[in-house]
Amino acid sequence: MSAKHFTPLVASLPSTVPFVGPEAQERARGKTFRARIGANENVFGPSPKAVAAMQEAVAQTWMYADPENHDLKSALAAYHAVAPENIVVGEGIDGLLGYVARMFVEPGVKVVTSLGAYPTFNFHVAGYGGELVTVPYRDDRENPDALIDMAKRTGARLIYISNPDNPMGTWWGAEAISEMIANVPDGSLLVLDEAYGEFAPESVVPPLDVSNPNVLRFRTFSKARGMAGARIGYAMGEAELIKGFDKIRNHFGVNRIAQIGALASLSDEAYLAEVISNVSAARDRITAIAEASGLSALPSASNFVAVDCGKDGDFARAVLGALIDQDIFVRMPGVAPQDRCIRVGAGLPADLDAFEEAFPKALARG
Amino acid sequence: MSAKHFTPLVASLPSTVPFVGPEAQERARGKTFRARIGANENVFGPSPKAVAAMQEAVAQTWMYADPENHDLKSALAAYHAVAPENIVVGEGIDGLLGYVARMFVEPGVKVVTSLGAYPTFNFHVAGYGGELVTVPYRDDRENPDALIDMAKRTGARLIYISNPDNPMGTWWGAEAISEMIANVPDGSLLVLDEAYGEFAPESVVPPLDVSNPNVLRFRTFSKARGMAGARIGYAMGEAELIKGFDKIRNHFGVNRIAQIGALASLSDEAYLAEVISNVSAARDRITAIAEASGLSALPSASNFVAVDCGKDGDFARAVLGALIDQDIFVRMPGVAPQDRCIRVGAGLPADLDAFEEAFPKALARG
Repeated sequence: MSAKHFTPLVASLPSTVPFVGPEAQERARGKTFRARIGANENVFGPSPKAVAAMQEAVAQTWMYADPENHDLKSALAAYHAVAPENIVVGEGIDGLLGYVARMFVEPGVKVVTSLGAYPTFNFHVAGYGGELVTVPYRDDRENPDALIDMAKRTGARLIYISNPDNPMGTWWGAEAISEMIANVPDGSLLVLDEAYGEFAPESVVPPLDVSNPNVLRFRTFSKARGMAGARIGYAMGEAELIKGFDKIRNHFGVNRIAQIGALASLSDEAYLAEVISNVSAARDRITAIAEASGLSALPSASNFVAVDCGKDGDFARAVLGALIDQDIFVRMPGVAPQDRCIRVGAGLPADLDAFEEAFPKALARG
Repeated sequence: MSAKHFTPLVASLPSTVPFVGPEAQERARGKTFRARIGANENVFGPSPKAVAAMQEAVAQTWMYADPENHDLKSALAAYHAVAPENIVVGEGIDGLLGYVARMFVEPGVKVVTSLGAYPTFNFHVAGYGGELVTVPYRDDRENPDALIDMAKRTGARLIYISNPDNPMGTWWGAEAISEMIANVPDGSLLVLDEAYGEFAPESVVPPLDVSNPNVLRFRTFSKARGMAGARIGYAMGEAELIKGFDKIRNHFGVNRIAQIGALASLSDEAYLAEVISNVSAARDRITAIAEASGLSALPSASNFVAVDCGKDGDFARAVLGALIDQDIFVRMPGVAPQDRCIRVGAGLPADLDAFEEAFPKALARG
């Protein structure tokens, strides 16, 4: 036996990491970053209630977590006013996107997404042999009409959109997304990634309708709830769709400490509001820093800001490199013309102090 | 779109949980268990060093974990005297078995395991359309020769064995397993699940040879390291095989607190020795409790003991039910003649006090 006995599909896939982590960059550089504002993490961290609950839960690590995620699902159901049958909890949105790909994608199946949208979704689709069909951004936003049209034209089984969008931070209002949901063609499922939903104004997130079998909505504790390292997210949708996850999921895949922390986090809306306000202030400051260099930043409904470096992708890549050389961890969009921007996370004041100091130098070097 | 658009393979799978968790049983019963000794968890818990490291790590939960698991892999490489390229870290052995199934199994592929062996492995194989071929236990042990013969006869791509075995706790010595590895036919891969390896005498675990592409060895922090709820395990093998995991794994799937706890755990061999000694004493006590009722227990190299209830499966199931009615959580093998036994975990003294008190009553009722 050897690697040559992989299934033909798996053999055809590259060995890859969709994102190189900041730790790998630090190892390659031989020094740490002074500002970690590149992975859309929430530097304000989890609720103190969640921290306390997790610290207490550490002593219980000898126990597997409840594979049905019962308590957390019940709390989420109450929070969102849906039934527990409409919720699946999993190992972050990444893990859940992998399950969705497995449920719906096989060789020959087409999947529509935006060119330059979330690479991990693409990784999972390719991993099950799906054929990705992409639609360009328009005015730095994903293009719901074009995504739907392309799905109709190609008979795509999945359509991916993130709202607010990653990597641009742009968004559509609830009405536009509701219209998109209404227009999902028969035979397609809309994968609506709302990882950044809590950062957006209320008018951005359309009402939940879990009777609609044409959409799955993905949420996470990684962003506004500050628990990226805990690996816990959830999807909401029609009960029969949700039941599909039980056919394939790693039932004992969720960390017990994460489960308990997530549950505690849900009970601290005051802290969530504080985080959202801190993130909003940080976005404003990033915009001001861009403007101080005569540049502009895109409006953002997420916890990061796309700063338009004012020239082309090569220039922005050079600016990014010069920031990294100054120990500022940031990332940037991969596709033109969005790659004229760098993506700067809503850091702590000290993080943004460092960015403010480094950015003009990076522009000068770029 | 709807559930009817699942891939034909996924549509054919049942919505299931391979194991019903004790929490679900507690909810159904409306009361908690007084002894949780049914899920092969390690009641002695993680090393105090791991607990301290995890408690400190809680504050870092806002950061994703290093997707390359670099620090932990380096430590494991040193611990096992192999290269980091020979190790993949993942979301528990369950998660890694799912990846192995995905890497090697597609519809029509045959996989050999023992009848009554680990259900979660079977769940993953079935989940990728594999055809399970089973071999009976012999004298309550998995049967390496028969497994190899069946693999040769059927052209199986995977062969599963756990050593020490779950659910019986029995084992083969290192020589028998080395011989089994040597006899793996071309085109087959031996999935050697050593989740309970640390509890066994040293003579049970054969030396590592990561140049051999015919075997992958699975280890976990869930058992002797007391971190089942952390969801972190690893596999060791030939570098090209290990690289295959990078084609498909959920790169950000490992919890950051788990990573840090696992690393700390590796540095506390004194505590590990203490746990192993506690487990050994608990096994002896379970055996003594069985003997006090005129029964016998199987020798075990794991952290649980199969107690032979002396009659058939129906009787043992009744005994199990009577234990559960007395708030003792235990499980049992599912297949005859192993189902004449119940499987009792190496509990704390208080857990085993409760078992000792309840067991004779359960036998009387059974």
